[in-house]
Amino acid sequence: MRVRIIGEPLPNIPWEDRPASTGHQGRLDVVWRSERNPVIARDLIPCSNSIFNSAVVPYKEAFAGVFRVDDMGRQMQLHAGRSEDGVTWDLNHERIEFVGRKKELGDFIYGYDPRVVWIEDRYYVTWCNWFHGPTIGVAYTHDFESFHQLENAFLPFNRNGVLFPRRINGRFAMLSRPSDNGHTPFGDIFYSESPDMDFWGNHRYVFGTAGGWQSTKVGAGPIPIETSEGWLMIYHGVLTSCNGYVYSAGAALLDLDEPWKVIARARTYFLSPRTLYECVGDVPNVVFPCATLCDAETGRLALYYGGADTVVAMAFGYVDDLIDYIKSDSIV
Amino acid sequence: MRVRIIGEPLPNIPWEDRPASTGHQGRLDVVWRSERNPVIARDLIPCSNSIFNSAVVPYKEAFAGVFRVDDMGRQMQLHAGRSEDGVTWDLNHERIEFVGRKKELGDFIYGYDPRVVWIEDRYYVTWCNWFHGPTIGVAYTHDFESFHQLENAFLPFNRNGVLFPRRINGRFAMLSRPSDNGHTPFGDIFYSESPDMDFWGNHRYVFGTAGGWQSTKVGAGPIPIETSEGWLMIYHGVLTSCNGYVYSAGAALLDLDEPWKVIARARTYFLSPRTLYECVGDVPNVVFPCATLCDAETGRLALYYGGADTVVAMAFGYVDDLIDYIKSDSIV
Amino acid sequence: MRVRIIGEPLPNIPWEDRPASTGHQGRLDVVWRSERNPVIARDLIPCSNSIFNSAVVPYKEAFAGVFRVDDMGRQMQLHAGRSEDGVTWDLNHERIEFVGRKKELGDFIYGYDPRVVWIEDRYYVTWCNWFHGPTIGVAYTHDFESFHQLENAFLPFNRNGVLFPRRINGRFAMLSRPSDNGHTPFGDIFYSESPDMDFWGNHRYVFGTAGGWQSTKVGAGPIPIETSEGWLMIYHGVLTSCNGYVYSAGAALLDLDEPWKVIARARTYFLSPRTLYECVGDVPNVVFPCATLCDAETGRLALYYGGADTVVAMAFGYVDDLIDYIKSDSIV
Amino acid sequence: MRVRIIGEPLPNIPWEDRPASTGHQGRLDVVWRSERNPVIARDLIPCSNSIFNSAVVPYKEAFAGVFRVDDMGRQMQLHAGRSEDGVTWDLNHERIEFVGRKKELGDFIYGYDPRVVWIEDRYYVTWCNWFHGPTIGVAYTHDFESFHQLENAFLPFNRNGVLFPRRINGRFAMLSRPSDNGHTPFGDIFYSESPDMDFWGNHRYVFGTAGGWQSTKVGAGPIPIETSEGWLMIYHGVLTSCNGYVYSAGAALLDLDEPWKVIARARTYFLSPRTLYECVGDVPNVVFPCATLCDAETGRLALYYGGADTVVAMAFGYVDDLIDYIKSDSIV
Amino acid sequence: MRVRIIGEPLPNIPWEDRPASTGHQGRLDVVWRSERNPVIARDLIPCSNSIFNSAVVPYKEAFAGVFRVDDMGRQMQLHAGRSEDGVTWDLNHERIEFVGRKKELGDFIYGYDPRVVWIEDRYYVTWCNWFHGPTIGVAYTHDFESFHQLENAFLPFNRNGVLFPRRINGRFAMLSRPSDNGHTPFGDIFYSESPDMDFWGNHRYVFGTAGGWQSTKVGAGPIPIETSEGWLMIYHGVLTSCNGYVYSAGAALLDLDEPWKVIARARTYFLSPRTLYECVGDVPNVVFPCATLCDAETGRLALYYGGADTVVAMAFGYVDDLIDYIKSDSIV
Amino acid sequence: MRVRIIGEPLPNIPWEDRPASTGHQGRLDVVWRSERNPVIARDLIPCSNSIFNSAVVPYKEAFAGVFRVDDMGRQMQLHAGRSEDGVTWDLNHERIEFVGRKKELGDFIYGYDPRVVWIEDRYYVTWCNWFHGPTIGVAYTHDFESFHQLENAFLPFNRNGVLFPRRINGRFAMLSRPSDNGHTPFGDIFYSESPDMDFWGNHRYVFGTAGGWQSTKVGAGPIPIETSEGWLMIYHGVLTSCNGYVYSAGAALLDLDEPWKVIARARTYFLSPRTLYECVGDVPNVVFPCATLCDAETGRLALYYGGADTVVAMAFGYVDDLIDYIKSDSIV
Repeated sequence: MRVRIIGEPLPNIPWEDRPASTGHQGRLDVVWRSERNPVIARDLIPCSNSIFNSAVVPYKEAFAGVFRVDDMGRQMQLHAGRSEDGVTWDLNHERIEFVGRKKELGDFIYGYDPRVVWIEDRYYVTWCNWFHGPTIGVAYTHDFESFHQLENAFLPFNRNGVLFPRRINGRFAMLSRPSDNGHTPFGDIFYSESPDMDFWGNHRYVFGTAGGWQSTKVGAGPIPIETSEGWLMIYHGVLTSCNGYVYSAGAALLDLDEPWKVIARARTYFLSPRTLYECVGDVPNVVFPCATLCDAETGRLALYYGGADTVVAMAFGYVDDLIDYIKSDSIV
Repeated sequence: MRVRIIGEPLPNIPWEDRPASTGHQGRLDVVWRSERNPVIARDLIPCSNSIFNSAVVPYKEAFAGVFRVDDMGRQMQLHAGRSEDGVTWDLNHERIEFVGRKKELGDFIYGYDPRVVWIEDRYYVTWCNWFHGPTIGVAYTHDFESFHQLENAFLPFNRNGVLFPRRINGRFAMLSRPSDNGHTPFGDIFYSESPDMDFWGNHRYVFGTAGGWQSTKVGAGPIPIETSEGWLMIYHGVLTSCNGYVYSAGAALLDLDEPWKVIARARTYFLSPRTLYECVGDVPNVVFPCATLCDAETGRLALYYGGADTVVAMAFGYVDDLIDYIKSDSIV
Repeated sequence: MRVRIIGEPLPNIPWEDRPASTGHQGRLDVVWRSERNPVIARDLIPCSNSIFNSAVVPYKEAFAGVFRVDDMGRQMQLHAGRSEDGVTWDLNHERIEFVGRKKELGDFIYGYDPRVVWIEDRYYVTWCNWFHGPTIGVAYTHDFESFHQLENAFLPFNRNGVLFPRRINGRFAMLSRPSDNGHTPFGDIFYSESPDMDFWGNHRYVFGTAGGWQSTKVGAGPIPIETSEGWLMIYHGVLTSCNGYVYSAGAALLDLDEPWKVIARARTYFLSPRTLYECVGDVPNVVFPCATLCDAETGRLALYYGGADTVVAMAFGYVDDLIDYIKSDSIV
Repeated sequence: MRVRIIGEPLPNIPWEDRPASTGHQGRLDVVWRSERNPVIARDLIPCSNSIFNSAVVPYKEAFAGVFRVDDMGRQMQLHAGRSEDGVTWDLNHERIEFVGRKKELGDFIYGYDPRVVWIEDRYYVTWCNWFHGPTIGVAYTHDFESFHQLENAFLPFNRNGVLFPRRINGRFAMLSRPSDNGHTPFGDIFYSESPDMDFWGNHRYVFGTAGGWQSTKVGAGPIPIETSEGWLMIYHGVLTSCNGYVYSAGAALLDLDEPWKVIARARTYFLSPRTLYECVGDVPNVVFPCATLCDAETGRLALYYGGADTVVAMAFGYVDDLIDYIKSDSIV
Repeated sequence: MRVRIIGEPLPNIPWEDRPASTGHQGRLDVVWRSERNPVIARDLIPCSNSIFNSAVVPYKEAFAGVFRVDDMGRQMQLHAGRSEDGVTWDLNHERIEFVGRKKELGDFIYGYDPRVVWIEDRYYVTWCNWFHGPTIGVAYTHDFESFHQLENAFLPFNRNGVLFPRRINGRFAMLSRPSDNGHTPFGDIFYSESPDMDFWGNHRYVFGTAGGWQSTKVGAGPIPIETSEGWLMIYHGVLTSCNGYVYSAGAALLDLDEPWKVIARARTYFLSPRTLYECVGDVPNVVFPCATLCDAETGRLALYYGGADTVVAMAFGYVDDLIDYIKSDSIV
Repeated sequence: MRVRIIGEPLPNIPWEDRPASTGHQGRLDVVWRSERNPVIARDLIPCSNSIFNSAVVPYKEAFAGVFRVDDMGRQMQLHAGRSEDGVTWDLNHERIEFVGRKKELGDFIYGYDPRVVWIEDRYYVTWCNWFHGPTIGVAYTHDFESFHQLENAFLPFNRNGVLFPRRINGRFAMLSRPSDNGHTPFGDIFYSESPDMDFWGNHRYVFGTAGGWQSTKVGAGPIPIETSEGWLMIYHGVLTSCNGYVYSAGAALLDLDEPWKVIARARTYFLSPRTLYECVGDVPNVVFPCATLCDAETGRLALYYGGADTVVAMAFGYVDDLIDYIKSDSIV
């Protein structure tokens, strides 16, 4: 392993080796899909229309997570879940009811696309939270049973709020993508800081759209991974075809101390809709990365991503390979 | 059977029992799909590009219907058809040529999404009929061979005109959805009355969009079923994703005497695109209910619906279960 | 006078003679504007933001009318008014509160662009009335004090409902323009009949857009005038420039017995925005004709029209000249 | 004076008495326009295409301000200016060059619609500042010569950031209107707090659109005025006609300690485009209030507002009358 | 005169001296408007709704031109005209009927925004000509009585085709602006060559939009003027406000031999809508330059431009000043 | 064979016989799909995201072609390829680098949807080439190794430039579809001529949209085939559903000497998306014909078309059948 990963060894992450060659002319993709995909079916629990764009973390020798569950009214909810192996999941049949939510935040109208990260002494959850439009909701939990809601990080309209796994320059740090109140046809990634998870400022521009697969908008995906090369940030990019949006996954390296400085950024995606569970579903042609499990010792990485806004799927790869891919064809 | 259905016993409706459990965590859907789906293939007859959104009725110990057939010029036509078992259909290779059509109605440019109902002494057909824009065409037949066209019920622009199976308060009654001249991004259901099938008035508002799956527009589906609990109205609702419309099926109960008064209305859909024949086709992600066959004695219900604007599919269930579903999570 | 007008002599209509020539190269317009324009200022009454698109009729040796008054909340209201000379108006400071309005019609949300006509034994008022969208409201009055509201003529969405001044073929007859729920970018004129002012049917297509000034939409204006040449129908047409809509006034002749048959229709407008009170205001570039006073004996015609959706203005001309203008450059 | 105003006596504010009645039927408007309007012409300085939407404050026995100046490239700039009488202004011919602007904020691309307020020990300026889209720029000055730029208050996209004139609950407080990156067709007013003018949070919803003149969007205008009845907030509302936006001015009263709580809010506007300098210009039909001068002793208020996005105009009134107007026809 | 103009002395061009200073703070505009504006009224001839965007040339000791005349059907036509002094014009009451028009070009549906230029032995006219969409029509005349139509220069969609006054590199040369079939919201200027006025090629990119007043689209205006500094090209630029397009006039210098190379281009406009005849009319806020008369001896230049798509106006200036303006604040 | 084909015998074209009947009611489609579809997979070469809309020709007893390859940045590139049997292809891993490209054409930004044809002494390639927007690029090759780029045929915006296989009336001839700079929602087919492949003119209108499957736009597909009945032109047509565009293939016959004259044109498509590789992929529901191989002796025709903007597929049929299909239900 050439790259050093700052993090815990996670020997028990769900892992599948790279499959044998496809036999095509010299092709070798950076990551490969799980043979068990989709690992979470759309109708896993009684109320679910679909389960996707969800976040998992290691928890007590096993795994826990927060899941986007659209119910059969197509209401967007957050459910907690647990798994022994990271592949087979038990999801609560009831949505998360946040504790301590101030009445000024209004009723819980919807919550979607959660991310989860351990910082210092607890798990923080961020998600797209309705507050007279979508913005970034913030909560914390110690046990994935009780979730304490804090102030929204930003004014609407915002989506894809992703915390860094530690303070930077003494402050909490978050990536986000300012949006509008619809199917936002634009979107750049910004960086913001907070001394206390309540007040946010020092807003910085990270990067915006580029050609091709990321020409309509971009948004941060899983919690960034700290490496000796910089923050490894996996993100989604969107292209607008005559028949709608296509969501793919790419990656970049950000400066460790000033993460709004981009060290390298791959020109190409590393995962794009090709299978039926990515191309067919409630929103065709979506690969939406939301979480990783990464073993700091081996560099193995399991990526969780939403397929077609309908199911949860997984892909596997090595951090080394991802960083090679970023640097070998960087647009920065 | 808890609910009383006002209608004929139809012991010969096509029926399949509920399949064994899917094994998921406690899930039990309200209706289940036919194992023979799609029951009508897109290329059943020589000229057909697709056959969908069609209406069937019991007729002389067997079944008859009016079918939307888009030909290979993608012209929308209506064809009559007959079936012994309600599943295997013979469709006329030629479209219906209406008799008695007044010249002021102009040429027959297109007709689509028919409904058929027996009222008093004949079968009435309503459909979306071009008259300088889409509006509700009306005709009647005694034999599914000769169809007599009447005046259009309304000015354009209108779609999804659905007659009640008997007079209400002494007048014919129709649900419809006022529209515009394109892919209407709005739509509520209204109720109108006519003393004579020529002049219409006493327009009433029934209901409009609600959250999630029915947030863009709603439109009446099959002929309402009269029950001791009210009119059972199955309807479609539309959600707009970033990649287009998604059509699902839900249901409501309307007051027997004042059908614009909503007794109960399910918050959730009961059928939504999940299979390949619903998710892939000329218009992906469409479940469009148009007709039912219902046995008043057992409460068995066979639902005919269009899949992906391409094929005809069927689902089965019990009226009791549908009414439970409506009342247990009603938004009224 | 070459054309015979079927109607009452109105010797007291407000009249100004054609002004002396403008001196340009041989130009002679069909109608001429009042020198007292705008005859009703936007701020005539305490609550008014604007007063425009209004209808007047002869009443008891003087004049009465129903006026569109947008208040300073920009809520669209209808006010009754009276005038001795047809030019100086007293408007009620309170909006019309309709009597007998059925609760199924919902609250009075807005009413605009009224027309008034005497038929048989009373004055009928039609206007654009909110009913889950704009549609045609109908009421009658005997005294311009008490107004009795009837059923809406049509389902939404509709605007510019204009009654004929007598039954045709034994039925009430109305022109209207089916619309959508916004700033409708299309619109044709249709004709409908009713035996009783409650149920409407026998819908017929009259005409749609044509080139230039009437290329976006057209809508009926004042009550049609019965003449020996046919119904004289003044209407508005709309052109879409890169800076919005331009409303002008044109005219056509319709068959007396089958008014959906167009005898002649002028290719050109006869009045289009040119003065400051037509080009500058809440909606720039609007000439919107809503009413005429016509003396059957002399053929003198006073036209009332809205200017810039802000004020009421008048123009004068002779029915003979209008019919010459229609026939000399007809597109039918 | 019924209402107590918390603020300084300003006996020298530019003042014109209410003009004699217009003679219309009983009409009495809440404020009246200056007879010297527009008080600042579009071409006052050599480079100016237009001067409008600008903020003034009392300064050293006279007046100073920050002005939106669009140059003849139609680039939006901020210029400082001075006036002895508040009506005749000297504007710097060069735009403000901010001091201390961090390089992470990028180049100064544009700045517009400034507000100015004295808090504690200095004048703060807020404006719409480009930062990969519009957001709220913040700076301070002691002398209207040197302006020190701070961090942007929020992520893009935001406009109409307006500071309160004192800390509330120990924190700086700002109103703003989250927006998108174009001619935003929506917009509600939010409230945010900051301990230090760097980090912002505790975001609260104040109010959104309502009917008529404020049905498209609303945005805060001048610095709120503290009174014994609550914060007097003048704001603009926008209506969308078929020919574009119409900007008018209305007012509301906010709770002194929890300003996101609305005590009263006028249903009607108090100023709307009627004069040529409001209806004709670079953007027709705009009245855009940005600043007031208020004499706490007499309750006299001079309002500065932009006309047609082209010139600066003034209107006069009494705080008492404004509060009566708000409370007498409140929609809260 | 610092700049040498390659062209004829035209001592009789209509000329007005610069008016006395406006008294504002040091302001001196590059050009000044005629005191006789608008020099051609909208209703000059019997059929005209408006006359604007027209081209004039010196002709036989006097002047001739081709004029855009929209008739009262708002049909866009071309009329020939003559003038003794360049200010007072006689326009033919009938539109130009082109001679030799091939039947493959279809009927004459519309023609607008003409330009006229003398090349070698005749006057060439170009205009926006319907050919299943707008494209560049080409014709020639010797006498402004008979006009011979040639092949369209390009495929649709194109507008603002402007010929250079001599061959360049042995070929005819034309500027144009590729467009779409509506109110094109984009537009760059291209250069093309032809050996024979029939076949066109060697297409080159000249320049596109830039900030502010020219941020939506740009299009060539009058025939370029050959000077010792390069081709002086006056053009229009468009800005999109929330209430529509604003058309202004700017200028650039192009390389004499390779005119697609831009030597200098002014950052600012030199003429923008400010007067009532530019801000109010069929299309508010339009200044559209189409022709110049230039005296090579004195450098005096008379500019003809359309006002508000309604009238013809004039402005005056010196070529020297225009070139100074271009070079002193160039964005190239 | 009833129709005579002017062209070479190609006994080695890849051919599959019509499969046995599908068993449906009397249905017999004009062409049938290859059982080996898709013949080129999306991931054939290391860099490819997708390979589609590509052109093949017979070359030295085997086959060669130019292929649209979108790489994993979703950049659109052109690659050359070779095949022994026309079904199994070897594609160069590197894109074509054109020789002789003039610097005025700018960088190669993208190239897509190529066509290839032999004329006189070389193979010409046309494609959609970026030149400040899409237009028609032209190049030639003798060996499919070195490609010499010429001038762009037209100004932007244009797509689907298709050369005829011989001079017509002594000039090169090309079909094309003028477009705009986005997902053009309109489009007609035009014909143009060139004496020298540099300058183009004599533009003629061929045909535009018609009902149903070709109601949004149409564009030429493979190189037209010369027959005794006229030019056999296969083209694509587009229908806009509520979920986006649907691309189908139809055909027409054009006059041999004046190809803008349409002899016959089928009302119906002959191939439309039905299989998974046509309905699911980067752009669902696309059948896009780009090339044919035709044996003049037997009339056998192999059609190459893109599926879902993702893969290359083939279909087979006889020229006789295609011409029967065109003539038996022609809309001309």
